[in-house]
Amino acid sequence: MKINGQSYRSIWLNENGWSVHIFDQRSLPWDLKIVELKTMDDAAIAIHEMWTRGAPLLAMTGAYGLALALREDTSDANLARAYDTLLATRPTAVNLKWALDKIRDEAAQYQGEARMKAAYALAVKLCDDDIATNAAIGAHGLPLIEAAHKRAGKTVNILTHCNAGWLATVDYGTATSPIYRAHDAGIPVHVWVDETRPRNQGASLTAFELAEHGVPHTVIADNTGGLLMMRGQVDLCIVGADRVTRNGDVCNKIGTYLKALAAHDNNVPFYVALPLSTFDPHLENGAAIPIEERSPSEVTHIEGLDKDGKIARIQLTRSPAANPGFDITPARLVSGYITENGLFSTAQLLT
Amino acid sequence: MKINGQSYRSIWLNENGWSVHIFDQRSLPWDLKIVELKTMDDAAIAIHEMWTRGAPLLAMTGAYGLALALREDTSDANLARAYDTLLATRPTAVNLKWALDKIRDEAAQYQGEARMKAAYALAVKLCDDDIATNAAIGAHGLPLIEAAHKRAGKTVNILTHCNAGWLATVDYGTATSPIYRAHDAGIPVHVWVDETRPRNQGASLTAFELAEHGVPHTVIADNTGGLLMMRGQVDLCIVGADRVTRNGDVCNKIGTYLKALAAHDNNVPFYVALPLSTFDPHLENGAAIPIEERSPSEVTHIEGLDKDGKIARIQLTRSPAANPGFDITPARLVSGYITENGLFSTAQLLT
Repeated sequence: MKINGQSYRSIWLNENGWSVHIFDQRSLPWDLKIVELKTMDDAAIAIHEMWTRGAPLLAMTGAYGLALALREDTSDANLARAYDTLLATRPTAVNLKWALDKIRDEAAQYQGEARMKAAYALAVKLCDDDIATNAAIGAHGLPLIEAAHKRAGKTVNILTHCNAGWLATVDYGTATSPIYRAHDAGIPVHVWVDETRPRNQGASLTAFELAEHGVPHTVIADNTGGLLMMRGQVDLCIVGADRVTRNGDVCNKIGTYLKALAAHDNNVPFYVALPLSTFDPHLENGAAIPIEERSPSEVTHIEGLDKDGKIARIQLTRSPAANPGFDITPARLVSGYITENGLFSTAQLLT
Repeated sequence: MKINGQSYRSIWLNENGWSVHIFDQRSLPWDLKIVELKTMDDAAIAIHEMWTRGAPLLAMTGAYGLALALREDTSDANLARAYDTLLATRPTAVNLKWALDKIRDEAAQYQGEARMKAAYALAVKLCDDDIATNAAIGAHGLPLIEAAHKRAGKTVNILTHCNAGWLATVDYGTATSPIYRAHDAGIPVHVWVDETRPRNQGASLTAFELAEHGVPHTVIADNTGGLLMMRGQVDLCIVGADRVTRNGDVCNKIGTYLKALAAHDNNVPFYVALPLSTFDPHLENGAAIPIEERSPSEVTHIEGLDKDGKIARIQLTRSPAANPGFDITPARLVSGYITENGLFSTAQLLT
């Protein structure tokens, strides 16, 4: 998607054919810092220090990290060492392990320079696959926005939560993919962006993405969506997902459930956009999903731009805080699942 | 209630019998600044600059402001001028006008020193009445917490939104009154405090109140309550109200509606605590309530303590923001209304 009029992916090979560019997303939305990863260690630091984030993008950074390692040393020992190092950067990231496994298994079939080339080729392919998946999600979500536009005859108001945008993937994003596609097709859209406390990925990342691509949007406190839906100011909701169980229960950023309840109470369609890889066939329903309890400091402190234009961190309360990172939206509240293979209802999921 | 072990009201007469003490609430929770109002102008500034806040407390500050004015000059002209000045500080504050009317009408019946004395006497009485009202709300809410304790046989977890605490009234608060009473009676309670974006009255004021009075509590992002209710970690919700219509629809701080939906979805009782004066018999239902649209800067910027221990304001996004201040919770989601005259169901309201 576009930043300041120029097209970008969130990760891309340098023209030299071997080093890798990403954004240091920690400084968004204030600074656009492009960093060059030249070694496996650079990639490991970028993942561990959260310069890069979002499950698909983490995976791609890991994939290129293995390729960078093989550029220095194509030995079996180095391949194993690099795999372990990269995996340890974010041990709970399932997509990261998936990508590292893919690259390692592919590379293991070759020796020397061919091994390195195979790793790079597969990393490129995984990125292209991610883009194709997200583009297909956009294509299958587009008719929902078109239909809303035809019904309303005016700007389509879409509410989203957190960042399931292109900065979390290689391009397009998941929840944002239908939105970008509709906007680029000339359908008038406006996005209500939940700021998404405590880490404010909505205000920091989704709002930045939409602004740079030129999509009209308005940031709101997470408390606000219910009133907007009651007033008829939301035509549909589209959110991403971290995991979806067999029955269609959706684990996503904390607060998603509250918006789904409000959508249901006001007959506003509530869609979840996700690659099929996010479905977890091993879990029967949402009650089985463990919820990550994150640091209370994410609630008690917050970062932003101070009066001198520097990124500053301030304290909001001295009281103790709790910070579960995700919640469960029951399948009964979901209008449909927008995937790369099409739109599915909850009933279709169960079959 | 208590601060650092000492009992306070949020407004009180000095021992000299004429000057008035309040807190400069702008510096809470970081500094406890007690300020002395010696003139009507002091009172007007305290209201206008939001040193003091909360509808009942604003009203009492205005009442004492008129008394202070009469201490300087008991003439009809000065009474009228002071009334106009104080009313202009917060022109939309209904309670403020109510209190100013009361004091003016009472004072108008006297001349000279008797006029001043009558104004002070009524201001004192209005404060005492506010305390009695809130104490009665606490007494009528207490059995709900006692019953929850008997059912659960363990600590009662209560979720509240925004600040309907003693700092918004003269003492006890409304939503907090049953909680303080239960705590003081030895019933183990724990309060989930919604931080209440965008102005964070929960994290700044409710959490401060509860901490100082020794009530166990945990601050959470506004996104979190749904998951907690789904997990059975909330026994009941108690919130305040800004206005309640004839059918029982509740206008309260933005985000209240989302918590009421989650409570309903998880069979968690959802109570609204309010003085009967908050009922508005002129409005049939919530759709008729105008919602104040507040400054977007409350969403795009936030205050807290910086690393040097100073209060700092930082920017959270460059995107446009919307900031409706209140939402409407439909009466069907309310389990009961805790008032100074007892607990009412929605059905009882309608009769």
